Amino acid sequence: MITKDDLQNAYNRVKDHIHNTPVLTSSYINELSGASVYFKCENFQKGGAYKIRGALNASLSLSEEERQKGIATHSSGNFAQAVAISAKLLNTQAHIVMPENAPAIKRQATADYGAQVYYCESTIQARESTLETVISKTGASKLHPSNDIPVITGQGTCAYELVQEVEGLDYIISPVGGGGVGAGTILACQYFSPNTKVVGAEPENADDAYRSLKAGSIQASVNPDTIADGLRTQLGDNNFPIIRDGIESIILVSENEIVEAMKMVWNRMKIIIEPSSATTLAALLKTKTLFENKRVGLIITGGNVDLSNLPF
Amino acid sequence: MITKDDLQNAYNRVKDHIHNTPVLTSSYINELSGASVYFKCENFQKGGAYKIRGALNASLSLSEEERQKGIATHSSGNFAQAVAISAKLLNTQAHIVMPENAPAIKRQATADYGAQVYYCESTIQARESTLETVISKTGASKLHPSNDIPVITGQGTCAYELVQEVEGLDYIISPVGGGGVGAGTILACQYFSPNTKVVGAEPENADDAYRSLKAGSIQASVNPDTIADGLRTQLGDNNFPIIRDGIESIILVSENEIVEAMKMVWNRMKIIIEPSSATTLAALLKTKTLFENKRVGLIITGGNVDLSNLPF
Repeated sequence: MITKDDLQNAYNRVKDHIHNTPVLTSSYINELSGASVYFKCENFQKGGAYKIRGALNASLSLSEEERQKGIATHSSGNFAQAVAISAKLLNTQAHIVMPENAPAIKRQATADYGAQVYYCESTIQARESTLETVISKTGASKLHPSNDIPVITGQGTCAYELVQEVEGLDYIISPVGGGGVGAGTILACQYFSPNTKVVGAEPENADDAYRSLKAGSIQASVNPDTIADGLRTQLGDNNFPIIRDGIESIILVSENEIVEAMKMVWNRMKIIIEPSSATTLAALLKTKTLFENKRVGLIITGGNVDLSNLPF
Repeated sequence: MITKDDLQNAYNRVKDHIHNTPVLTSSYINELSGASVYFKCENFQKGGAYKIRGALNASLSLSEEERQKGIATHSSGNFAQAVAISAKLLNTQAHIVMPENAPAIKRQATADYGAQVYYCESTIQARESTLETVISKTGASKLHPSNDIPVITGQGTCAYELVQEVEGLDYIISPVGGGGVGAGTILACQYFSPNTKVVGAEPENADDAYRSLKAGSIQASVNPDTIADGLRTQLGDNNFPIIRDGIESIILVSENEIVEAMKMVWNRMKIIIEPSSATTLAALLKTKTLFENKRVGLIITGGNVDLSNLPF
């Protein structure tokens, strides 16, 4: 159970280490959607994504003794960099297990922040067993990118900032992947802006959260084939009940809708957002009647894209 | 002769119609360059470029009677959109002559703002004669994108905002194409931040301003083959003397340096800037010793790029 105080404390803990990212608007998108849309731009966050919030809150919640032994995770994406940056900020060592087929640019970025990187096969079994070996050797604390309680709490600081800055939001749309930022957003609204409803955005091709809500239990993400690479993971047992009880609905969007929304933001707003973030705008534009004349916040989760491999 | 009052009046005239665009920084680029670098982000300006400043100042300087007859220009680029937006804001008609081979996306954007678009052959002669015909029929006032006095003055409001926001700048680097924003930047510094030196950035492949400074007279831009499409034009008789007398130096950058600088900004800062803007960062990184430990402003002129035709 994450309390209001937990979330407030998490914010106080991380706020001096992270950016209070800007909230941007676009008159073009307001006109097109008929809504007042507020983009919470975590693409401008340290590491190019909101993930630092949870990684840092979890790291700062460790005892001094634990922290000295380092922090560890397995990740091929934004969370790897977030843990690496957190370790650097806290003057300790990050241990990151990465699949050997992770993009060179992400491997390099993680190593550049001073993390020790361990490569393994690309299966979840190999990743977990390699991580266990690393932890048993180093004594480092293990961080899960979306299901640890302090990580979920830390991710909630993003919507916390948004509802402090923009009053009277009717909705916040959050991408749903592993469930960390979705659950954190729900808690932030419940505690700090109770009239704001949270809607999830998920790719049709990775609709495990949508199916989980329908089934009432966590459904596996099987061969998720989506450009939104941050949303291929499935919910965890800590964030699932928060999402199940607190989310208004999940809107599914197609690959084409994701790419078109991403292109619209790049062209009109001149900012780089990654496909996972674009699901929120795609969901808004797909369901205009729900959001018409409403004040809607979008969690723009990140801006890490491979410029040599764009979908347009 | 453009006075301090002229520039102050231009700012007062346009300020309620335009964005005071944000000034961004990047700790990565600061570390890499050894300088404190301030990006004045006109990619977030209306129309995606600084050009609206000059177009609007010129339009607002017309008499009511002149204004009612409309405003006209020939342009295939950002100035066309700037004139179209200005006309829309002032409730008058824009008449834009465009070469028939102008990119469809720019033709569409200009028409979307309500401008009357006239197509002609892609030669300068055809553009000018078509424009003269349009003007003789409509009585519209002709605006030149970089050499009209009120346009130069308007472009100076960009650096005016920058030096108000960031004190103690040692340098501002401005791209030099037609010379409007270069000359405006020089005037803004002379009048409002006299210790700030202005350096120009120009592509090696369109080095007419560099050659003009050397020769002491305007040299033609002959077959400029550069990705920095905003910098293919040459200086005019109004802005040349301002640049000749006020610029510290012009730094030439290669096509590869422009693309690498652009990619760095996209990757690290998550903002979309066009190649013409990237010349400023390329110049900074090429001439590190000059700027080391200095406070340097970069005029990021715009963010209008064709996403389907990127150099990476």
